[in-house]
Amino acid sequence: MSHPTPQSDSPWLSTEEIDSARQRLPIMYVDAVPVRLDDLGEVTAVGLLLRVTSTGEINRSLVSGRVLYHERIRTALLRHLEKDLGPLALPRLPASPQPFTVAEYFPTPGVSPFFDPRQHAISLAYVVPVEGDCHPQQDALEFSWLTPQEARDPRMQAEIGGGQALLLLQALAHLGH
Amino acid sequence: MSHPTPQSDSPWLSTEEIDSARQRLPIMYVDAVPVRLDDLGEVTAVGLLLRVTSTGEINRSLVSGRVLYHERIRTALLRHLEKDLGPLALPRLPASPQPFTVAEYFPTPGVSPFFDPRQHAISLAYVVPVEGDCHPQQDALEFSWLTPQEARDPRMQAEIGGGQALLLLQALAHLGH
Amino acid sequence: MSHPTPQSDSPWLSTEEIDSARQRLPIMYVDAVPVRLDDLGEVTAVGLLLRVTSTGEINRSLVSGRVLYHERIRTALLRHLEKDLGPLALPRLPASPQPFTVAEYFPTPGVSPFFDPRQHAISLAYVVPVEGDCHPQQDALEFSWLTPQEARDPRMQAEIGGGQALLLLQALAHLGH
Amino acid sequence: MSHPTPQSDSPWLSTEEIDSARQRLPIMYVDAVPVRLDDLGEVTAVGLLLRVTSTGEINRSLVSGRVLYHERIRTALLRHLEKDLGPLALPRLPASPQPFTVAEYFPTPGVSPFFDPRQHAISLAYVVPVEGDCHPQQDALEFSWLTPQEARDPRMQAEIGGGQALLLLQALAHLGH
Repeated sequence: MSHPTPQSDSPWLSTEEIDSARQRLPIMYVDAVPVRLDDLGEVTAVGLLLRVTSTGEINRSLVSGRVLYHERIRTALLRHLEKDLGPLALPRLPASPQPFTVAEYFPTPGVSPFFDPRQHAISLAYVVPVEGDCHPQQDALEFSWLTPQEARDPRMQAEIGGGQALLLLQALAHLGH
Repeated sequence: MSHPTPQSDSPWLSTEEIDSARQRLPIMYVDAVPVRLDDLGEVTAVGLLLRVTSTGEINRSLVSGRVLYHERIRTALLRHLEKDLGPLALPRLPASPQPFTVAEYFPTPGVSPFFDPRQHAISLAYVVPVEGDCHPQQDALEFSWLTPQEARDPRMQAEIGGGQALLLLQALAHLGH
Repeated sequence: MSHPTPQSDSPWLSTEEIDSARQRLPIMYVDAVPVRLDDLGEVTAVGLLLRVTSTGEINRSLVSGRVLYHERIRTALLRHLEKDLGPLALPRLPASPQPFTVAEYFPTPGVSPFFDPRQHAISLAYVVPVEGDCHPQQDALEFSWLTPQEARDPRMQAEIGGGQALLLLQALAHLGH
Repeated sequence: MSHPTPQSDSPWLSTEEIDSARQRLPIMYVDAVPVRLDDLGEVTAVGLLLRVTSTGEINRSLVSGRVLYHERIRTALLRHLEKDLGPLALPRLPASPQPFTVAEYFPTPGVSPFFDPRQHAISLAYVVPVEGDCHPQQDALEFSWLTPQEARDPRMQAEIGGGQALLLLQALAHLGH
């Protein structure tokens, strides 16, 4: 899975401490599916990042990251969207705290459809309309808008890591596709 | 309840025909709760119309109206929002067809919390962020933005007709209030 | 699509009248996806009917039917589940009126993913756990429990009419599959 | 707030370690609103525990508890329901992982409507129909079924700690009340 490495966003915990906590507690994440909508609210495109993972692989992923101590979920969503898509993305954060699903990433493959070798992460998944210009930041090589049809293509699905291909399909189903 | 009179929006059905159908079939509606959101998606205000009803009463109401034959739900939502709030309202239609609740309006009081003397209406209820300027149109006298606290005030609640006071509280609960 | 013919369930409207209304108003439906759950609430099977449609074709379908005048949505759901699955099915009706999605069936193919040659139907879709024994009734030839994997098989999907194959996939996505 | 003390349910973490983690990471919880439903799925009662909190106060609360490392959310829900309501409660776990809301408990009052002096907890909230007999266990003094009207009574609301009164109202709103 392509969750970004945590050091950069965790002033409150040393790398050793977060590594230790990752062995002992489920870690709270948010996953955002960036979408373009037309005037009727119909999805016209979904956004995927192309990233080098910590193990050196290249894969595609959603916007994803940890919720910090004493941080609101909304603040974490905005922070990760700005970190990955840049300051001009203009994400429209959801009005309701209800996620469209909850993804449980386990370090053991097969416990659930979601896999993260580093940790047990529980992620609240939201669809986020994005109205501005997206420019990949930091460890992201590229950000691409795909039509729902392109996103469902099996070859594209195979490029997405950690079970997020399923999460993307669940988001499209939630949007009526 | 302050559902607008149907003539204006029904080129496909005469007044007599729709009156007849209203006695025999549930009529499909949409209810929209207009909201203002801050940058984090947190609701800062909800919008209510002040209207003269068909029986001459003055009350407050949500944006509400019928879905026409062969009309998409999204198109009906946009049509009623533009009809009630004017062409500069810039509503952000929901990306998902899933309503936050379904309100069943019965012509008999007490069957459900929702009441409409003219018909059995089933209404899909959506929260709709509105970013532009709202100007009441047609039979609406006024459009007001209220804070969530003001909207929950019992006196304000008492001015809302047909059970839509409950619908507004359900929307606020859905938004985390 | 395999919506059952309406005569049997409509004491309030003659066949001519409902045929006329079908040309002029969206007709309100419910769709139920019957599921078996294990003790943890995980779906182990989904139920599909095998039916002869009004045009003489054989296809698979969900439990589906019209909401009558002055009928609660819950009552309509229970009525159609008992009509299709028999009196011993023991369906567990949803506690919340919020459907997992809304399917818009149009008489014109391509307007939406859902198609019904007879009418414009708007259907509230619910997942309904069923704990008892199911015996197909009336025009249904057979009722089968399929694993989620079997239900997603493209050959099985091809046997399902009117876009309900998509509705089934949306239900599975909503359930975390 | 009346989250149960964690020692009893955490074989994987010593008391000191969990206390340390609570100062540095959001802790993952589940909240369950036990309900009785009639044959149509309509809620007839909601269940509340009467508990002595860690500070010696007596208050009412929902079923609530931590998600352990490598534990499924469903397993955590079932474990806490059985721990609080006893082995004969027969809870019907939700088929979908989508919670009706997410409650963010902060150790600082006022950051959100939810408060927990011991930690920053993020809790997935589910409505859980319960069909068997409930007997309070361990630190719970009593378990009571209340009608929705009784549960909304301001005096009852005042007996519920940590913001769970709001969570209960949000659950009732989600159920159409």
